[in-house]
Amino acid sequence: MNPASHRLPGAAVIREVGLRDGLQSIATILPTEHKREWIRAAHAAGQREIEVGSFVPARLLPQLADTAELVAFAKTLPGLFVSVLVPNLRGAESALTAQADLMIVPLSASHAHSLANLRKTPDDVVAEVAKIRAARDAAGSKTLIEGGVGTAFGCTLQGDVDKREVLRLMQALLDAGADRVSLADTVGYADPAMVRELFEEALQIAGDRFWCGHFHDTRGLGLANVYAALEVGVARFDACLAGIGGCPHAPGASGNVSTEDLAYMLGSMGIATGIDIAQLLALRARVADWLKGETLHGALWQAGLPKTFPVSSSAALAA
Amino acid sequence: MNPASHRLPGAAVIREVGLRDGLQSIATILPTEHKREWIRAAHAAGQREIEVGSFVPARLLPQLADTAELVAFAKTLPGLFVSVLVPNLRGAESALTAQADLMIVPLSASHAHSLANLRKTPDDVVAEVAKIRAARDAAGSKTLIEGGVGTAFGCTLQGDVDKREVLRLMQALLDAGADRVSLADTVGYADPAMVRELFEEALQIAGDRFWCGHFHDTRGLGLANVYAALEVGVARFDACLAGIGGCPHAPGASGNVSTEDLAYMLGSMGIATGIDIAQLLALRARVADWLKGETLHGALWQAGLPKTFPVSSSAALAA
Repeated sequence: MNPASHRLPGAAVIREVGLRDGLQSIATILPTEHKREWIRAAHAAGQREIEVGSFVPARLLPQLADTAELVAFAKTLPGLFVSVLVPNLRGAESALTAQADLMIVPLSASHAHSLANLRKTPDDVVAEVAKIRAARDAAGSKTLIEGGVGTAFGCTLQGDVDKREVLRLMQALLDAGADRVSLADTVGYADPAMVRELFEEALQIAGDRFWCGHFHDTRGLGLANVYAALEVGVARFDACLAGIGGCPHAPGASGNVSTEDLAYMLGSMGIATGIDIAQLLALRARVADWLKGETLHGALWQAGLPKTFPVSSSAALAA
Repeated sequence: MNPASHRLPGAAVIREVGLRDGLQSIATILPTEHKREWIRAAHAAGQREIEVGSFVPARLLPQLADTAELVAFAKTLPGLFVSVLVPNLRGAESALTAQADLMIVPLSASHAHSLANLRKTPDDVVAEVAKIRAARDAAGSKTLIEGGVGTAFGCTLQGDVDKREVLRLMQALLDAGADRVSLADTVGYADPAMVRELFEEALQIAGDRFWCGHFHDTRGLGLANVYAALEVGVARFDACLAGIGGCPHAPGASGNVSTEDLAYMLGSMGIATGIDIAQLLALRARVADWLKGETLHGALWQAGLPKTFPVSSSAALAA
């Protein structure tokens, strides 16, 4: 074995997406004050990237109707990089007005899923990204544009999704003006071998513009998939506190990788995240209380940290 | 990236340990007839290695009092390799009488855990393995002896377990006459980086005599750890249907890697296991019914197989 072939990143970022991907998929509508508390406590625990909501019509997702307010609040916290999801140019205009640091435009590589979820073909979304880029540049805004390629490993509606199509769409997003691109296993179909293969090629295409891996734990492989991505050099991952989340248009999909278990895995391997896990678990308990009746996930909160966990390194960066 | 540095095994064995590691840790005492049904159905689903019980005094583990009867039954199933756990020479004598194919002698690399769990030091266990080997050879038996090094990644009682001590004990077990050696993360402290590092060195020591990786999913990293072990060439893993199991002397430890999720991960990556997952899920439903009231684990049973899952390859070998 060649040790040089196995260098994990020295640091990684966990982007909290529980307030968007998580809350949009569950029935409970969390009051804005609780969301503010969540953002405040996540920041205090050391999280530095949070997707606070989505600029979609409130009639579609009443759970996320307070996104503008949350962006404004989140931007008051020092060093916090604030993301929002935008489905189209109209949403992007709201994100520009709110001065979000980054807006994620979701694209589904599965044509069937794209039509069901966004009522657009994937290439329509690429065209929308070009308009969003033009609007961003015209406004002189610094808001980054991330093109997120979802159902990248298959789809509950159409089944297989061709890897070449995923990579073609990723390249098209970059050509249309996306500053960053990401890959999402929207429905939990990925395995570590698939992740390694697809992410290696994606990194070759996007280089430093490759931003994030987004894994759902639908079939229990979420953290194994993260590990496979780490091995090829990916160092930013979406996760939801307590593993909440899913996709309303992909039946059976449930639960993103849980933030606390991911922070534990990274911390245990000596990969710096800046997150104080004890604080994160305390926040999880509060969120669990707010979301009583919803199905939550994750393992660490029950077992606690190992006696051997290197606390010092992770706690040092928070505070 | 060098693709040659990333060859996963073409086939892997899942040893079912639910009837031993699983059942010993829960309150329900499963009737022998149900255990027979479990073994029969697991065999029908393609499983070819099962740990059916443990030769310990029935007053200590009444759940496993029918081990001799189960070995006799399991040996009637064609091609089934039948393992049992034995804590000492006396248990080994029962295993020899029962003509088990393999007996696992657990050793805890944590001295504190060893004393609490076995009332022996690790080196006392090594000495016991020498006696077991002598008894096996004197009996002219073909029963293999596996030395299983537990708490190999740390311990809830003593905390750190020195990697050098783990490897020293593994070598000592081989020197004492163990035919096979294994490593177990008894309390769920391992992460994929630790697994890769320790298993690489263990394989260098034991070569083909390295038998099995045994991971608990206590903190959600079980399958990620399996993947890391696969990457360095390990191709046999313990698992419990529905993720039951744990260790009574390691507070907080709960749940082995679940057989069905592991079979799914391996099958998805094209690693042949011979297991028909649909049959395995049907068995899981029956076992869940028998174990009503117990906490079960695993994700696949809720979400089902992906539309894209390559059924043909895994079903072909079963039947």
